[in-house]
Amino acid sequence: MNATHIEHIGIAVPNLEEAIRYWEDVMGLKCYKTEVVEDQKVKTAFLKIGEVKIELLEATSPDSTIAKFIENNGGRGGMHHIAFAVENSSEALAEAESKGIRLIDKTSRKGAENLNIGFMHPKSTLGVLTELCSK
Amino acid sequence: MNATHIEHIGIAVPNLEEAIRYWEDVMGLKCYKTEVVEDQKVKTAFLKIGEVKIELLEATSPDSTIAKFIENNGGRGGMHHIAFAVENSSEALAEAESKGIRLIDKTSRKGAENLNIGFMHPKSTLGVLTELCSK
Repeated sequence: MNATHIEHIGIAVPNLEEAIRYWEDVMGLKCYKTEVVEDQKVKTAFLKIGEVKIELLEATSPDSTIAKFIENNGGRGGMHHIAFAVENSSEALAEAESKGIRLIDKTSRKGAENLNIGFMHPKSTLGVLTELCSK
Repeated sequence: MNATHIEHIGIAVPNLEEAIRYWEDVMGLKCYKTEVVEDQKVKTAFLKIGEVKIELLEATSPDSTIAKFIENNGGRGGMHHIAFAVENSSEALAEAESKGIRLIDKTSRKGAENLNIGFMHPKSTLGVLTELCSK
């Protein structure tokens, strides 16, 4: 797989403004960007700590996967996924599939921050929704 | 708070051996240590990617918080907590409390890898169980 580092940790939040306030005021991080990802029906905010980004995700539609996650979590936010930086996300997805991993994305697609991203299914990754991404 | 980086991501697993196999074979990481933390009733395994550790946690007792997490999660594992490296975890806990954060640990205690650790309550941290740790 040759993952080099954790690119980001995705955190589902019911309210993006409130979440940015918490991560800035309590955790002392700085939000450097917000972005709407139409494809995934989310509004995102990015903060950075060391080499890792914190990606806050608010649903923009009730049928967004983030809305469903929060609904299934009793209305609360929480850790949603971990994204690993790899050299080539399509190749890494294919390699994982060859090892018996069920994929959500058979090949990579464009995600936030213009990365090429793809998800592995949490049923195959011991409950951790796992994203692979490359530039 | 002055957190410098993510020290580790804690992942609850029903079976440590199976989880180590997944993280080594599919994700390509290397388990460099296992450790029993009696206090927390867990057996842990550590792998590293970039500056961040992945801490796999298996319960050693049915009344471990990890056993309860897995039970509440339909028997499956998943992301359990994020740990941030700070200069002084007791001071960081006190600072968080002064900002209205509910603490699980009022002051730091010894955790895995001999770090001084303390947890903030997920009800105060938007659903993310958050650990602060220092050397």
